[in-house]
Amino acid sequence: MADFTFHHGGVSVPNLDAAIDWYGRVLGFAVEKRFWIEAARSHTAMLRKGPLRFELFEVEGAAPLPEERRHPPSDLRTHGNKHLAFRVEDLEAFLTEMESKAVDVAFVVREAFGKGCFIRDCAGNLIEFVEEPD
Amino acid sequence: MADFTFHHGGVSVPNLDAAIDWYGRVLGFAVEKRFWIEAARSHTAMLRKGPLRFELFEVEGAAPLPEERRHPPSDLRTHGNKHLAFRVEDLEAFLTEMESKAVDVAFVVREAFGKGCFIRDCAGNLIEFVEEPD
Repeated sequence: MADFTFHHGGVSVPNLDAAIDWYGRVLGFAVEKRFWIEAARSHTAMLRKGPLRFELFEVEGAAPLPEERRHPPSDLRTHGNKHLAFRVEDLEAFLTEMESKAVDVAFVVREAFGKGCFIRDCAGNLIEFVEEPD
Repeated sequence: MADFTFHHGGVSVPNLDAAIDWYGRVLGFAVEKRFWIEAARSHTAMLRKGPLRFELFEVEGAAPLPEERRHPPSDLRTHGNKHLAFRVEDLEAFLTEMESKAVDVAFVVREAFGKGCFIRDCAGNLIEFVEEPD
Protein backbone atom coordinates (compact mmCIF):
# COMPACT_ATOMS: atom_id res chain seq x y z
CA MET A 1 0.00 0.00 0.00
CA ALA A 2 1.39 3.40 -1.00
CA ASP A 3 2.93 5.42 1.82
CA PHE A 4 2.74 9.21 1.76
CA THR A 5 2.86 12.30 3.94
CA PHE A 6 0.99 15.59 3.84
CA HIS A 7 2.51 18.05 1.38
CA HIS A 8 0.15 20.99 0.77
CA GLY A 9 -3.32 22.36 0.35
CA GLY A 10 -4.02 24.15 -2.94
CA VAL A 11 -6.10 27.36 -2.94
CA SER A 12 -7.11 29.56 -5.89
CA VAL A 13 -7.12 33.21 -4.82
CA PRO A 14 -7.96 36.52 -6.49
CA ASN A 15 -4.77 38.33 -5.41
CA LEU A 16 -1.57 36.38 -4.83
CA ASP A 17 0.30 39.16 -3.02
CA ALA A 18 -2.60 39.83 -0.66
CA ALA A 19 -2.88 36.11 0.10
CA ILE A 20 0.88 35.71 0.68
CA ASP A 21 0.65 38.60 3.13
CA TRP A 22 -2.36 37.09 4.95
CA TYR A 23 -0.97 33.54 5.24
CA GLY A 24 2.31 35.00 6.51
CA ARG A 25 0.93 37.51 8.98
CA VAL A 26 -1.90 35.38 10.37
CA LEU A 27 -0.61 31.80 10.18
CA GLY A 28 3.17 32.17 9.88
CA PHE A 29 3.74 30.75 6.38
CA ALA A 30 6.74 32.03 4.37
CA VAL A 31 7.24 31.96 0.60
CA GLU A 32 9.29 28.93 -0.43
CA LYS A 33 9.11 29.71 -4.17
CA ARG A 34 7.10 31.63 -6.74
CA PHE A 35 6.57 30.29 -10.25
CA TRP A 36 4.34 30.29 -13.33
CA ILE A 37 2.25 27.24 -14.28
CA GLU A 38 1.66 27.50 -18.02
CA ALA A 39 -0.97 24.72 -18.22
CA ALA A 40 -3.16 26.62 -15.74
CA ARG A 41 -1.98 30.14 -16.67
CA SER A 42 -1.34 30.60 -12.95
CA HIS A 43 0.93 32.91 -11.01
CA THR A 44 1.76 30.52 -8.18
CA ALA A 45 3.39 30.60 -4.77
CA MET A 46 4.38 27.69 -2.55
CA LEU A 47 4.24 28.76 1.09
CA ARG A 48 5.84 26.78 3.87
CA LYS A 49 5.71 26.55 7.65
CA GLY A 50 7.89 23.63 8.78
CA PRO A 51 6.34 20.48 7.28
CA LEU A 52 3.15 22.32 6.20
CA ARG A 53 2.56 24.05 2.89
CA PHE A 54 -0.10 25.99 1.03
CA GLU A 55 0.09 26.37 -2.74
CA LEU A 56 -1.66 29.56 -3.85
CA PHE A 57 -2.79 30.09 -7.44
CA GLU A 58 -3.75 33.38 -9.04
CA VAL A 59 -5.38 32.80 -12.43
CA GLU A 60 -6.32 35.88 -14.42
CA GLY A 61 -10.05 36.12 -14.99
CA ALA A 62 -10.91 33.32 -12.55
CA ALA A 63 -14.48 33.27 -11.25
CA PRO A 64 -15.08 34.45 -7.69
CA LEU A 65 -15.56 32.09 -4.75
CA PRO A 66 -19.20 30.95 -4.81
CA GLU A 67 -21.00 32.64 -1.89
CA GLU A 68 -22.10 29.31 -0.36
CA ARG A 69 -18.45 28.27 0.00
CA ARG A 70 -17.93 30.95 2.68
CA HIS A 71 -20.04 29.00 5.21
CA PRO A 72 -19.16 25.50 6.48
CA PRO A 73 -22.66 23.99 6.36
CA SER A 74 -23.65 25.40 2.95
CA ASP A 75 -20.22 24.57 1.52
CA LEU A 76 -20.93 20.88 2.13
CA ARG A 77 -24.12 21.04 0.06
CA THR A 78 -22.07 20.78 -3.12
CA HIS A 79 -19.81 17.76 -3.59
CA GLY A 80 -16.08 18.39 -3.78
CA ASN A 81 -12.90 19.10 -1.87
CA LYS A 82 -14.01 21.50 0.84
CA HIS A 83 -11.40 22.47 3.43
CA LEU A 84 -8.14 21.72 5.16
CA ALA A 85 -8.14 21.24 8.92
CA PHE A 86 -5.23 21.64 11.31
CA ARG A 87 -4.85 20.55 14.95
CA VAL A 88 -4.15 23.09 17.68
CA GLU A 89 -3.30 22.38 21.31
CA ASP A 90 -5.60 25.04 22.74
CA LEU A 91 -8.57 26.36 20.77
CA GLU A 92 -9.22 29.29 23.12
CA ALA A 93 -5.63 30.53 22.86
CA PHE A 94 -5.85 30.18 19.08
CA LEU A 95 -9.10 32.17 18.96
CA THR A 96 -7.60 34.89 21.16
CA GLU A 97 -4.70 35.20 18.72
CA MET A 98 -7.08 35.28 15.73
CA GLU A 99 -9.13 37.98 17.45
CA SER A 100 -5.99 40.04 18.09
CA LYS A 101 -5.29 39.85 14.35
CA ALA A 102 -8.89 40.80 13.43
CA VAL A 103 -9.33 37.49 11.57
CA ASP A 104 -12.77 36.62 10.20
CA VAL A 105 -13.99 33.68 12.34
CA ALA A 106 -16.80 31.84 10.54
CA PHE A 107 -17.84 29.21 13.05
CA VAL A 108 -16.90 28.01 16.54
CA VAL A 109 -17.95 24.68 18.06
CA ARG A 110 -17.53 24.02 21.77
CA GLU A 111 -19.23 20.70 22.41
CA ALA A 112 -18.60 17.70 24.62
CA PHE A 113 -17.63 15.70 21.50
CA GLY A 114 -15.09 18.23 20.31
CA LYS A 115 -13.88 21.80 19.95
CA GLY A 116 -12.96 23.58 16.75
CA CYS A 117 -13.44 26.60 14.55
CA PHE A 118 -13.39 27.76 10.96
CA ILE A 119 -11.67 30.97 9.96
CA ARG A 120 -11.75 32.69 6.56
CA ASP A 121 -8.60 33.78 4.76
CA CYS A 122 -8.47 37.23 3.14
CA ALA A 123 -10.41 35.88 0.14
CA GLY A 124 -13.12 34.08 2.13
CA ASN A 125 -11.67 30.57 1.94
CA LEU A 126 -12.47 28.41 4.96
CA ILE A 127 -9.71 26.86 7.09
CA GLU A 128 -10.58 24.62 10.04
CA PHE A 129 -8.71 24.24 13.33
CA VAL A 130 -9.59 21.47 15.78
CA GLU A 131 -8.44 21.00 19.35
CA GLU A 132 -7.44 17.41 19.90
CA PRO A 133 -4.91 15.55 22.06
CA ASP A 134 -1.76 14.78 20.00
CA MET B 1 2.45 32.72 16.36
CA ALA B 2 0.00 29.82 16.54
CA ASP B 3 1.50 26.37 16.11
CA PHE B 4 -0.48 23.61 14.45
CA THR B 5 -0.19 20.32 12.60
CA PHE B 6 -2.12 18.79 9.73
CA HIS B 7 -5.34 17.14 10.83
CA HIS B 8 -7.58 16.36 7.84
CA GLY B 9 -8.95 17.24 4.46
CA GLY B 10 -12.73 17.56 4.22
CA VAL B 11 -14.56 16.17 1.16
CA SER B 12 -18.28 16.19 0.38
CA VAL B 13 -19.24 12.99 -1.44
CA PRO B 14 -22.43 11.57 -2.94
CA ASN B 15 -22.14 8.12 -1.30
CA LEU B 16 -20.36 7.74 2.05
CA ASP B 17 -20.07 3.95 1.94
CA ALA B 18 -18.64 3.98 -1.59
CA ALA B 19 -16.12 6.65 -0.59
CA ILE B 20 -15.09 4.80 2.60
CA ASP B 21 -14.49 1.74 0.43
CA TRP B 22 -12.42 3.68 -2.13
CA TYR B 23 -10.24 5.57 0.39
CA GLY B 24 -9.62 2.28 2.21
CA ARG B 25 -8.91 0.08 -0.79
CA VAL B 26 -6.88 2.59 -2.83
CA LEU B 27 -5.10 4.73 -0.22
CA GLY B 28 -5.21 2.64 2.97
CA PHE B 29 -7.43 4.83 5.16
CA ALA B 30 -9.53 3.14 7.88
CA VAL B 31 -12.68 4.45 9.56
CA GLU B 32 -11.84 6.13 12.86
CA LYS B 33 -15.44 7.11 13.63
CA ARG B 34 -18.79 7.72 11.99
CA PHE B 35 -21.16 10.41 13.22
CA TRP B 36 -23.99 12.77 12.32
CA ILE B 37 -23.46 16.55 12.07
CA GLU B 38 -26.83 18.14 12.67
CA ALA B 39 -25.80 21.68 11.59
CA ALA B 40 -24.85 20.36 8.17
CA ARG B 41 -27.33 17.45 8.06
CA SER B 42 -24.35 15.28 7.22
CA HIS B 43 -23.65 11.60 7.60
CA THR B 44 -19.95 11.86 8.34
CA ALA B 45 -16.92 9.60 8.59
CA MET B 46 -13.45 10.43 9.86
CA LEU B 47 -10.90 8.20 8.12
CA ARG B 48 -7.36 7.79 9.37
CA LYS B 49 -4.02 6.52 8.11
CA GLY B 50 -1.38 7.19 10.77
CA PRO B 51 -1.20 10.97 11.21
CA LEU B 52 -3.34 11.63 8.10
CA ARG B 53 -7.10 11.94 7.99
CA PHE B 54 -9.92 12.56 5.54
CA GLU B 55 -13.32 13.68 6.78
CA LEU B 56 -16.06 12.59 4.38
CA PHE B 57 -19.50 14.20 4.37
CA GLU B 58 -22.64 12.83 2.75
CA VAL B 59 -25.38 15.46 2.70
CA GLU B 60 -28.74 14.40 1.32
CA GLY B 61 -29.68 16.34 -1.79
CA ALA B 62 -26.24 17.94 -2.20
CA ALA B 63 -25.42 19.28 -5.66
CA PRO B 64 -23.03 17.26 -7.82
CA LEU B 65 -19.36 18.12 -8.24
CA PRO B 66 -19.14 20.87 -10.88
CA GLU B 67 -17.68 19.33 -14.05
CA GLU B 68 -14.77 21.82 -14.14
CA ARG B 69 -13.60 20.60 -10.74
CA ARG B 70 -12.63 17.22 -12.26
CA HIS B 71 -9.67 18.77 -14.11
CA PRO B 72 -6.72 20.47 -12.36
CA PRO B 73 -6.36 23.46 -14.71
CA SER B 74 -10.07 24.27 -15.01
CA ASP B 75 -10.57 23.72 -11.27
CA LEU B 76 -8.23 26.65 -10.59
CA ARG B 77 -10.36 28.98 -12.71
CA THR B 78 -12.78 29.40 -9.82
CA HIS B 79 -11.43 30.73 -6.51
CA GLY B 80 -11.59 28.44 -3.51
CA ASN B 81 -10.04 25.51 -1.69
CA LYS B 82 -9.04 23.16 -4.51
CA HIS B 83 -7.10 20.04 -3.51
CA LEU B 84 -4.93 18.27 -0.98
CA ALA B 85 -1.47 17.11 -2.01
CA PHE B 86 0.64 14.37 -0.50
CA ARG B 87 4.32 13.57 -0.91
CA VAL B 88 5.43 10.17 -2.22
CA GLU B 89 8.99 8.83 -2.40
CA ASP B 90 8.64 7.40 -5.89
CA LEU B 91 6.03 8.69 -8.33
CA GLU B 92 6.48 5.85 -10.84
CA ALA B 93 5.94 3.20 -8.16
CA PHE B 94 2.87 5.09 -6.97
CA LEU B 95 1.46 5.28 -10.51
CA THR B 96 2.08 1.56 -11.04
CA GLU B 97 0.09 0.83 -7.88
CA MET B 98 -2.71 3.17 -8.96
CA GLU B 99 -2.80 1.47 -12.37
CA SER B 100 -3.03 -1.96 -10.72
CA LYS B 101 -6.07 -0.68 -8.82
CA ALA B 102 -7.66 0.82 -11.97
CA VAL B 103 -7.59 4.28 -10.43
CA ASP B 104 -8.63 7.26 -12.57
CA VAL B 105 -5.42 9.27 -13.14
CA ALA B 106 -6.25 12.81 -14.21
CA PHE B 107 -2.86 14.34 -14.87
CA VAL B 108 0.82 13.39 -14.74
CA VAL B 109 3.71 15.84 -14.80
CA ARG B 110 7.28 14.66 -15.38
CA GLU B 111 9.36 17.80 -15.72
CA ALA B 112 12.84 18.87 -14.71
CA PHE B 113 11.27 21.14 -12.06
CA GLY B 114 9.17 18.40 -10.51
CA LYS B 115 7.15 15.21 -10.78
CA GLY B 116 3.60 14.67 -9.66
CA CYS B 117 0.12 13.49 -10.55
CA PHE B 118 -3.52 14.03 -9.80
CA ILE B 119 -5.86 11.11 -9.28
CA ARG B 120 -9.65 11.21 -8.92
CA ASP B 121 -11.46 9.49 -6.08
CA CYS B 122 -14.59 7.43 -6.81
CA ALA B 123 -16.65 10.66 -6.95
CA GLY B 124 -14.27 12.61 -9.21
CA ASN B 125 -12.52 14.62 -6.50
CA LEU B 126 -8.89 15.46 -7.31
CA ILE B 127 -6.04 14.37 -5.02
CA GLU B 128 -2.45 15.35 -5.84
CA PHE B 129 0.73 13.37 -5.16
CA VAL B 130 4.15 14.95 -5.60
CA GLU B 131 7.56 13.28 -5.59
CA GLU B 132 9.93 15.29 -3.49
CA PRO B 133 12.95 14.57 -1.27
CA ASP B 134 11.85 14.40 2.38
